[in-house]
Amino acid sequence: MQTRSRVRVFAPASASNLGPGFDILGLALSAPGDFVEAEVADRPGVELAGVTGDGGLLSRDPAVNVAGIAASALLSRLRAEGLGAPGVRLWLEKRMPMASGLGSSAASSVAGAMAVNEVFGRPLPRRELLAAALEGERAASGAGHADNAAPSLLGGIVLIRSYDPLDLVELPVPPALWITVVHPHAAVRTEEARALVMSRGFRLADCVANLGNAAAMVAALYRNDLELLGRSIEDRLVEPVRAALIPAHAEVKRAALGAGALGCSISGSGPSIFAMTADELTASAVAMAMTAAFRDAAGLVSDAYVGRVNTDGATVREDAAG
Amino acid sequence: MQTRSRVRVFAPASASNLGPGFDILGLALSAPGDFVEAEVADRPGVELAGVTGDGGLLSRDPAVNVAGIAASALLSRLRAEGLGAPGVRLWLEKRMPMASGLGSSAASSVAGAMAVNEVFGRPLPRRELLAAALEGERAASGAGHADNAAPSLLGGIVLIRSYDPLDLVELPVPPALWITVVHPHAAVRTEEARALVMSRGFRLADCVANLGNAAAMVAALYRNDLELLGRSIEDRLVEPVRAALIPAHAEVKRAALGAGALGCSISGSGPSIFAMTADELTASAVAMAMTAAFRDAAGLVSDAYVGRVNTDGATVREDAAG
Repeated sequence: MQTRSRVRVFAPASASNLGPGFDILGLALSAPGDFVEAEVADRPGVELAGVTGDGGLLSRDPAVNVAGIAASALLSRLRAEGLGAPGVRLWLEKRMPMASGLGSSAASSVAGAMAVNEVFGRPLPRRELLAAALEGERAASGAGHADNAAPSLLGGIVLIRSYDPLDLVELPVPPALWITVVHPHAAVRTEEARALVMSRGFRLADCVANLGNAAAMVAALYRNDLELLGRSIEDRLVEPVRAALIPAHAEVKRAALGAGALGCSISGSGPSIFAMTADELTASAVAMAMTAAFRDAAGLVSDAYVGRVNTDGATVREDAAG
Repeated sequence: MQTRSRVRVFAPASASNLGPGFDILGLALSAPGDFVEAEVADRPGVELAGVTGDGGLLSRDPAVNVAGIAASALLSRLRAEGLGAPGVRLWLEKRMPMASGLGSSAASSVAGAMAVNEVFGRPLPRRELLAAALEGERAASGAGHADNAAPSLLGGIVLIRSYDPLDLVELPVPPALWITVVHPHAAVRTEEARALVMSRGFRLADCVANLGNAAAMVAALYRNDLELLGRSIEDRLVEPVRAALIPAHAEVKRAALGAGALGCSISGSGPSIFAMTADELTASAVAMAMTAAFRDAAGLVSDAYVGRVNTDGATVREDAAG
């Protein structure tokens, strides 16, 4: 175990609750994402030495900040396995919007856990970092859903078969697939959005529709069938409830499909909306159409991100000092 | 279009509602199944000339018997397309138990539709017969679920992505997969079993569990990962409700898993129970264990069927006269 003096880790944003796949399907985005730098410290435990880019909204207390929570969880794990890690000092750079439906807390959590693992010479394989990252997620949203943290950590498109025990399946990424995500400047609190759907009773007919579509999304990824993938992006359980929380949801979705998107739905718990397309040009046209619809129908400014699925997941950025 | 004087068609039984995949996942069995013979008749419409093997329980009226209904639907379709089919005379041989959860009405419906298509020289491709077969299903169960009729017709493991429009995905069949189905001599009426689940409100947590497992079943089939397939055979929505209708359900399931089954659940709406295994020897041991459990825990005699997934679907049997 060769400790490094300092590392810098990038963890990408992610689109979770993909279409019919509430809590079970997520993918990593190429941008945006968060950075965490870590250096070994003599004092045991986690020190959060700096947080930037959050507009002062996040706690600097490492027992409250999700990057600190995930880092502490990993540090405890390393010590429990006799890997003798002393303390770490962290810097969190938020480079993505919070409460956006893009997995902001997951990105910070993943970056925090991975930075600790890297600074101590990578004692654990990547998949083993997920449990620590999920401790951050749990603190942020009140639930340990993994469909943001798993793709942010591992990259690609990830299926969560089961939460207890945690059982992940990494799915193939169609080479031609492009993702457009548009984030309007309006916040939806994940906890409130979850509470709205957790308490209801759902009709079996709607469960069946989502089962068919979620299963077909997986088949489409293995078959590299983007048409099938697009028409499987249909959510009868959660989107009808959550759409009401997102200004101009119907108009933005219509604009995306009108501009050539194969499928379109809410990213995470919103307000961001993602669309899938089969090429970059259409992905950009879809971004423009969605941005215009948020502006025209709801007076909202929004940011658009256009890119392929990020198949790298969280990565060490060698531009760090050290 | 070359009409044949007489044809004989076999349509296999099927296991539907596969694990978490209520109404969306079904597979064709190697045995048992139904036979329908057809010959061209001068009188327009469908004549049901004979029904055997049903213990006198099925109607001889072609407007009520599902084989007759499916045959009539196909005949109407052929005439609507100007394919000028006059009448047909049918004989239905029931060779499988009814109200068993093995898709008995689907097998009769599929065989009826296919026999008509064959006797008129196969004017329609196989997939086009499904709509007519589903008319028979609808008459039998009050619902147009396709996860018996589609695998019985097409063979293999079939995913129903959507019912409106009907959208099927044929999934890969792992070469090592063996299916055991055990049918206890106790009937469950499909309509009643459906009514029991259709009226409830389901918790989102249970929907999520089924979404994860149904999606993972599909991934497992593409990855040829029988371990993953087995642990994905878990149904939190429907099985807990329907288990109460099946004597010794828990004991039989425990026996199957104890004898080496990868996964085990109710076939269709029961009372049959299916299990998946990775080789023939284990499949036979599982059959014996399940049969013994039905006998010991509920005093029930049962029939066991052990075989591979039937990848042929409905077939013309050349042992017919003509």
